[in-house]
Amino acid sequence: MKSESDIDKLIYLFSKLPGLGSRSARRIVLHLLQDPDVRLKNLIDILSTTKENITTCGICGNLDSSDPCNICSDTSRMTDVIAVVETVADLWAMERSGVYRGYYHVLGGALSAAKGTNPESLRLPALMKRCMELDVQEVIIATNSTTEGQTTAFYITEYLKDCKFHISRLASGIPMGGELDYLDEGTLSAAFSLRQPF
Amino acid sequence: MKSESDIDKLIYLFSKLPGLGSRSARRIVLHLLQDPDVRLKNLIDILSTTKENITTCGICGNLDSSDPCNICSDTSRMTDVIAVVETVADLWAMERSGVYRGYYHVLGGALSAAKGTNPESLRLPALMKRCMELDVQEVIIATNSTTEGQTTAFYITEYLKDCKFHISRLASGIPMGGELDYLDEGTLSAAFSLRQPF
Repeated sequence: MKSESDIDKLIYLFSKLPGLGSRSARRIVLHLLQDPDVRLKNLIDILSTTKENITTCGICGNLDSSDPCNICSDTSRMTDVIAVVETVADLWAMERSGVYRGYYHVLGGALSAAKGTNPESLRLPALMKRCMELDVQEVIIATNSTTEGQTTAFYITEYLKDCKFHISRLASGIPMGGELDYLDEGTLSAAFSLRQPF
Repeated sequence: MKSESDIDKLIYLFSKLPGLGSRSARRIVLHLLQDPDVRLKNLIDILSTTKENITTCGICGNLDSSDPCNICSDTSRMTDVIAVVETVADLWAMERSGVYRGYYHVLGGALSAAKGTNPESLRLPALMKRCMELDVQEVIIATNSTTEGQTTAFYITEYLKDCKFHISRLASGIPMGGELDYLDEGTLSAAFSLRQPF
């Protein structure tokens, strides 16, 4: 077998990225190596630029190449509503949907006994401070619909209960295109309890 | 939506790698961004080192960080046998199997009317030259078992027919763990014609 070369190290590093294994990592590395002056170079350049510029937004907690991030510095957004999300990935998912035009607040996780995440590790005081400063009318709690996400949602509601703004929560129910036969009981039961007038 | 940032460019670049799409690219980029000083840095470092050192072996056509590659410079290998493969990926696959301890010769493709690959674009004169110099006893044709691979195999056999060494071909048949019911007729028919005494 080959001794541990740069290529082997590169394949190993790629194989540890989320969603990749050794076979897909090998395909990617070979693809890059087949045109090092374009493919490899482009990837190195953009990774290096990103590494130099990447920063956590001091306001919302988003990852971006500027601080404040381009969402927080976008003055065309609604200033009186904040969506509270667990992670940057969730913020990006909301942005992709294109349905929301207010600001965000990234908690940095959800309460979890298993992972040892306690309320102190969430960015709640910063949220409270922002709500006061921006004269927010509505806080939309957009945590995941998991046990941890729901626990966190209840905790935030409790934390903000003395504030005068409205607190809402993303709706639970059947996902678009979902078939009843394939849904779990929890979703079906939530969709039934929260049924809407037609 | 966000304007085109470094992060978007990075996600786009990853999404164009083989086997990845925009969703998996986003997961990978987010994973890298969450620890830029370790994950991003390591990836940049090893990509840069690889880019600087990567070269095509002048002897066999393998991609490696040295020329001759570490297979061609491995003196413990059998010197009298050469396996002819279509691509570097095929060479790596043979190496992973660990079954073969001779040298390789990468053709750089297979004959294909559709892709416009003609005999001149394959590294055949170099193969002939090596066979003479190394006093090779056997050339193993390890092209793929596709129409192009088989055409190429026949072409090489014809090309080398005046040489005195032995020319062999990887066996066709049922893959390990394969079930007859799930095999195509071509494989089954080959496995039947080439049946072995028990």
